[in-house]
Amino acid sequence: MHSTQPALPFALALRERWSRSKSLLCVGLDPDRARLPVHLRDRAEGYFEFCKAIVDATHDLVCAFKPQIAYFASSRAEDQLETLMRYIKTTYPEVVLVLDAKRGDIGPTAEHYAREAFERYGADAVTLSPYLGSDSIEPFLSYRGKGAIILCRTSNPGGSDVQFLECGGTPLFELVAQMVAQRWNAQGQCGVVVGATFPKELARVRRIVGDMPILVPGVGAQGGDIRATVEGGSTEEGGMMVNSSRAIIYASAGEDFAEAARAVAQATRDEINQYRQASN
Amino acid sequence: MHSTQPALPFALALRERWSRSKSLLCVGLDPDRARLPVHLRDRAEGYFEFCKAIVDATHDLVCAFKPQIAYFASSRAEDQLETLMRYIKTTYPEVVLVLDAKRGDIGPTAEHYAREAFERYGADAVTLSPYLGSDSIEPFLSYRGKGAIILCRTSNPGGSDVQFLECGGTPLFELVAQMVAQRWNAQGQCGVVVGATFPKELARVRRIVGDMPILVPGVGAQGGDIRATVEGGSTEEGGMMVNSSRAIIYASAGEDFAEAARAVAQATRDEINQYRQASN
Repeated sequence: MHSTQPALPFALALRERWSRSKSLLCVGLDPDRARLPVHLRDRAEGYFEFCKAIVDATHDLVCAFKPQIAYFASSRAEDQLETLMRYIKTTYPEVVLVLDAKRGDIGPTAEHYAREAFERYGADAVTLSPYLGSDSIEPFLSYRGKGAIILCRTSNPGGSDVQFLECGGTPLFELVAQMVAQRWNAQGQCGVVVGATFPKELARVRRIVGDMPILVPGVGAQGGDIRATVEGGSTEEGGMMVNSSRAIIYASAGEDFAEAARAVAQATRDEINQYRQASN
Repeated sequence: MHSTQPALPFALALRERWSRSKSLLCVGLDPDRARLPVHLRDRAEGYFEFCKAIVDATHDLVCAFKPQIAYFASSRAEDQLETLMRYIKTTYPEVVLVLDAKRGDIGPTAEHYAREAFERYGADAVTLSPYLGSDSIEPFLSYRGKGAIILCRTSNPGGSDVQFLECGGTPLFELVAQMVAQRWNAQGQCGVVVGATFPKELARVRRIVGDMPILVPGVGAQGGDIRATVEGGSTEEGGMMVNSSRAIIYASAGEDFAEAARAVAQATRDEINQYRQASN
């Protein structure tokens, strides 16, 4: 047990947020200096200011925000990520906060990664790799109420190299989905990642994991089909965090970037909801 | 091409280092505040000072050092990791420097993780997860001469959950080893991670990957058998980085921690060499 228990457990907070916001949209916060609006590019706190403006402009349109730690780490900007996480938690506590870190390690090392995600950054949930197995996930689950979102079927072409290997007639990613659903989700803390670029596989995972939350990257810049994604993965209460990063945060390279982000976020949310209503 | 090309490519540097140092030992640098000697525990630069003392005391006994980034990240100590990496590179440039980060992500995000490992921290090689496939590895390989060490068979009990799944009669970790050897290692930049706790599987991986470097965690505190490890994994020129972290760096909790670390490192190196000579 840790002192950083969330006010609401991850799964409950997400369900409540789906219901209140009527949105399955997750905005990914991937700040890259070369792509920031010129007026923010050379500012010391440029990453925070950029992300804060996106967050302020879109918070009512989303169920979740998902900062990607690599962008901060490559620029020695962990302090700005801390500030951003704290800002979101304080200002928009109803929005679910997923740290995208795809960690995967064992024993004491995994404990340190869990401490990083949940204590240092205060995330509600963190993305994890399944490759090292159950004892690489447990240190994250020991933070009761926090979420562990396990990579299952990723949206990149090379994702098939390992995830699509046939194991006794079943592709590996389905076995991972089963493992998460049947073993790792005992306390209801888990979710899975399935790319929007494979809607049929998303539908198969949905059948395996029941109503577990699915984080779905790959719409927007990566070209995933929103209709097929929503029809394959959504549940009556929501069921998905449909993530778009670049298409939203880089909608404009000018000083109007936040308004432009809002417009694309709104259109994406509405498109998701259109197919959602049709399929329910 | 990047400006951070190493003086010697990773594989060549490692081969030269095996030859000159006559050591296959890799010392893992996993500083944990609660386990530091009391006189260093509350110092602002305690992690750096602790690791520097270990490095100074053991550099002539090792082929490689392997700092584990989670320990620094959980304590907001990335700056101390930077200082440590720079110190090792400057003071002991002949020792191979592996950043243990087990990253795994796609596209632009993987590029940012590669930048973190090779530009920010100046590592010679970094550990990576294979789960996301070839395009998650490529951004690291595009740093010519740098090393990408891919998780294959890890030393933890839960490692079997995914890595030991049978895919067409072959356990997954062997298919990963084949993928690394046949596809990802085209420029000779790859290595694999195989835990010392599974010496038979280490021997199988050795047959698959030829003379590719194998990073072998799990001796020391994790209890892997050095004799079986060396007999299963070593090659005439070396072939392995046999990692020990806790058994060496925490050999004493007193002010004599560095001398104690040296004594354990020396004994471990000698034990490795004893079985190496016997098997060659």
